[in-house]
Amino acid sequence: MKLYDLAGAEDDRRFSPYCWRVKMALRHKGLEFETVPWRFTEKDVIAKHGSATVPVLIDGGRAVHDSWRIALYLEEAYPQRPALFEGGQALALTEFFGHWTVRAVHPAMLKVVVLELFARLHDKDKAYFRESREKRFGMTLEQYGADPKAALAALRGALEPVRPLLVQHAFVSGHGPGYADYMLFGAFQWARVMSPTRLLEPDDPLFAWRERVLDLFGGYARAAKGYPVWA
Amino acid sequence: MKLYDLAGAEDDRRFSPYCWRVKMALRHKGLEFETVPWRFTEKDVIAKHGSATVPVLIDGGRAVHDSWRIALYLEEAYPQRPALFEGGQALALTEFFGHWTVRAVHPAMLKVVVLELFARLHDKDKAYFRESREKRFGMTLEQYGADPKAALAALRGALEPVRPLLVQHAFVSGHGPGYADYMLFGAFQWARVMSPTRLLEPDDPLFAWRERVLDLFGGYARAAKGYPVWA
Repeated sequence: MKLYDLAGAEDDRRFSPYCWRVKMALRHKGLEFETVPWRFTEKDVIAKHGSATVPVLIDGGRAVHDSWRIALYLEEAYPQRPALFEGGQALALTEFFGHWTVRAVHPAMLKVVVLELFARLHDKDKAYFRESREKRFGMTLEQYGADPKAALAALRGALEPVRPLLVQHAFVSGHGPGYADYMLFGAFQWARVMSPTRLLEPDDPLFAWRERVLDLFGGYARAAKGYPVWA
Repeated sequence: MKLYDLAGAEDDRRFSPYCWRVKMALRHKGLEFETVPWRFTEKDVIAKHGSATVPVLIDGGRAVHDSWRIALYLEEAYPQRPALFEGGQALALTEFFGHWTVRAVHPAMLKVVVLELFARLHDKDKAYFRESREKRFGMTLEQYGADPKAALAALRGALEPVRPLLVQHAFVSGHGPGYADYMLFGAFQWARVMSPTRLLEPDDPLFAWRERVLDLFGGYARAAKGYPVWA
């Protein structure tokens, strides 16, 4: 299998939260894959696979894009491997968790790290990133990222509903990790790869959870190029 | 079984979102129960069961309070009945869904209906409700409920992460209803019992979902004293 994976200025700085969801899902299922560094502006490379964004997974002759569709594909194509979803109810609730993550956590996370992230983009991606994000935010990147301290406080507030869960359970998905964990973890890894900012205090239940996810699969995500969690 | 159930001025106006979670869970499991109208200020009635708030469920010699603990109790005590949670992963994700509901939906919902709700409280509860809620809100009830139109727009925005889910699935819990559905439905029923305000437009995926939940168990929740959903 081959995964097109968003990279920064350096080939091995892989920061897409959605690609991280898929990489963790692939490791969860114990599937072998290679990643191919891809930049925002390399639209032509993946156009033949019907997508303008990554992740794009190539499995034999088949191309699947969109992280959620890839997760569903993996679950269907490799049912004998460890499950990402324990049944239909868990699948629907994981889908909700993903929507919550994208709406409540992603914007808050990006606001904390946007300028550090921008600095680590490949030069050929900078104009694209600036233009598309400034249009989305309705302001310049510098305005969006002007107050990272306030943004960090807002991020920690946005994460509030998940904390009591992680006091009760080792993972968002209960006693073991599931796709919901990889959804939230993707957001943290997005930041970790691009910014030395310390996002969580060690006494936050999310801190220990993130450590547990970083330890999964022989420390797979921990070994990725980025910054120590506890800077 | 006996359930202490929060009532308004009239004995049969039952508005607690947490009691609705439990009533729907009891019906889901096909268990027989009677409800006992209870008011906020009747602390002495349930003090012997170790709680100052409802729901309190009496099952034989056992008293269980707190809606989440009651749900876990029912699942454990009646495993042969239809499941509220399809396994441990669904349970953890449902717990998250409940935290999201309480933090994101409940305050927004209450802001829309607070003055209508207050008007339908039992007289003996009014001073207690006013004092406790004004302390929580940091303002008077009249200030909190001063702009129900803006509050309704905020509520509809707060519900955003659940909409794409209900385009894909009939229920929050997937193809059939589960405890997560009753968590969100409790908030809608809280409003429906106390206020004629039209909360959802018919083209909202939440509208059809709410209709489906109102239809469950022979229209159990629909038959409750309240206001038509489509006023």
